[in-house]
Amino acid sequence: MSIKEHIERAQIDVASALNLYFEQALDSDRAIKEATHYSLFNGGKRLRPFLVYATGKILGADKKDLDILAAAIECIHSYSLVHDDLPAMDDDDLRRGRPTCHIVYGEAQAILAGDALQTLAFELIAKHSFNCSAQTQVKMIAALAHASGLEGMVSGQGLDIAATDKIITVQELERIHKLKTGALINCAITLGALCSENVDEQTLENLSVFGYAIGLAFQVHDDILDVEGDTVTLGKPQGSDIAANKATYPALLGMLGAKEKAQNLIQQAHEALANIDADTTLLASLANYLIERDH
Amino acid sequence: MSIKEHIERAQIDVASALNLYFEQALDSDRAIKEATHYSLFNGGKRLRPFLVYATGKILGADKKDLDILAAAIECIHSYSLVHDDLPAMDDDDLRRGRPTCHIVYGEAQAILAGDALQTLAFELIAKHSFNCSAQTQVKMIAALAHASGLEGMVSGQGLDIAATDKIITVQELERIHKLKTGALINCAITLGALCSENVDEQTLENLSVFGYAIGLAFQVHDDILDVEGDTVTLGKPQGSDIAANKATYPALLGMLGAKEKAQNLIQQAHEALANIDADTTLLASLANYLIERDH
Repeated sequence: MSIKEHIERAQIDVASALNLYFEQALDSDRAIKEATHYSLFNGGKRLRPFLVYATGKILGADKKDLDILAAAIECIHSYSLVHDDLPAMDDDDLRRGRPTCHIVYGEAQAILAGDALQTLAFELIAKHSFNCSAQTQVKMIAALAHASGLEGMVSGQGLDIAATDKIITVQELERIHKLKTGALINCAITLGALCSENVDEQTLENLSVFGYAIGLAFQVHDDILDVEGDTVTLGKPQGSDIAANKATYPALLGMLGAKEKAQNLIQQAHEALANIDADTTLLASLANYLIERDH
Repeated sequence: MSIKEHIERAQIDVASALNLYFEQALDSDRAIKEATHYSLFNGGKRLRPFLVYATGKILGADKKDLDILAAAIECIHSYSLVHDDLPAMDDDDLRRGRPTCHIVYGEAQAILAGDALQTLAFELIAKHSFNCSAQTQVKMIAALAHASGLEGMVSGQGLDIAATDKIITVQELERIHKLKTGALINCAITLGALCSENVDEQTLENLSVFGYAIGLAFQVHDDILDVEGDTVTLGKPQGSDIAANKATYPALLGMLGAKEKAQNLIQQAHEALANIDADTTLLASLANYLIERDH
């Protein structure tokens, strides 16, 4: 299978796992249930689920366990997008070519849908009967919470908002992205690895280097696409970062500098994989794909 | 100790547990850290922490474990208040006599602070070394998530918003409160009980009857205070539910009917406690206190 086919496989698998929950959720407000479902199924790339599956598979984790972890991390990612799009935050009307959650369901329901999606992530992991031990289950919940919260994604978004309209350094921009997107991308890999229960500290460390490198490369490439991509392919207006006065890598490093940075990061990612004693072909292909994609 | 002194003890203990986290949280955005801390320390009654401590103590749970559970459930409660107060939701400027989170820190930071508080609840439980088993730890996380999410608190708030300006029945109002406040109040009791690890199904069931009865009585009494209380004692404008066109028990049942309902619920709560084979004096005192308080 090509990397694109592997990503499509992850998209199908995580969709099944998510839909299973929605068929079972009984006593819930219909509007919020609809809004959460709409937000989860908005044509996302499912990069984080893919990373859960790819890493877990390499290390021998159970497929059904990975389904739950993939669904959970996508819930966190999805909640963060719903809240980031709100008028008080980035104020975006479109995401991937479709109206954002608050445009369709109103602001109150969008806030609640985001809240419910975050809870759902933890509920999915805590309710599943894993093949791994309860100790590992707790460790995975701790990792997901740490990556999402005050010392991870939420602080990244806070710093990002604070940096709008300000001149910041490349180091400051990297800290923002490390927290805002890096922490969760890295966590996807950690979850896949922990779930296998036969992963040593050194492998976890190498996977983490890989995770942060591709997370940052992903972001640099996003900034490049914001300048060079076209609106239809991107599903959002080309140039929207610049219009919103967001600091970007092309703005700070120049377009050539940004492209070089993305290449260097992918090189680092490959070096980290080379130190891992397992077949990491799929993760290597993903790294290359991340800086070649057009949306 | 009087019930008021027991409640004050719970307030002090949960404050210590929460502050311990904030001393350790290193890599986080200062503004959001401040906003979460402000929201957690806004003079709340700490009813849910009290219930965790009171139930856990009866059944022999470890005090340090209860500290974490009390802190976690207060984080969930606190996040829900921050988000409920937002302009797109209930649009409240004051809570307990102090400006709400978004008034002090702005809407974007308030959304993020609420998000971070929710995550923190799960992080606190998942990171703590409990004296009970990892299986129980997972069960407690599942209970907290279930009570907070799409089949609990969030749906209650969604139904509440949808019911504003509409005429609803007492049954519909009860369903809203059962989800919006009942689920989490009940969960506080469940967490305290689960943590002890020597609680049988029948006791859990009796505690649940007690929990839902006092949760609803608490809400009925809140509605009564909204009519009969005074603005300074309440910390919010007297008559604010009526001004916001919210359905209330006095409006649906008359003031006498509402007071009778609160009494009946507390009677049910006492009957549930009578079936429990342990010293439930403290929970009984709390039940009485809930419908006697003036704020």
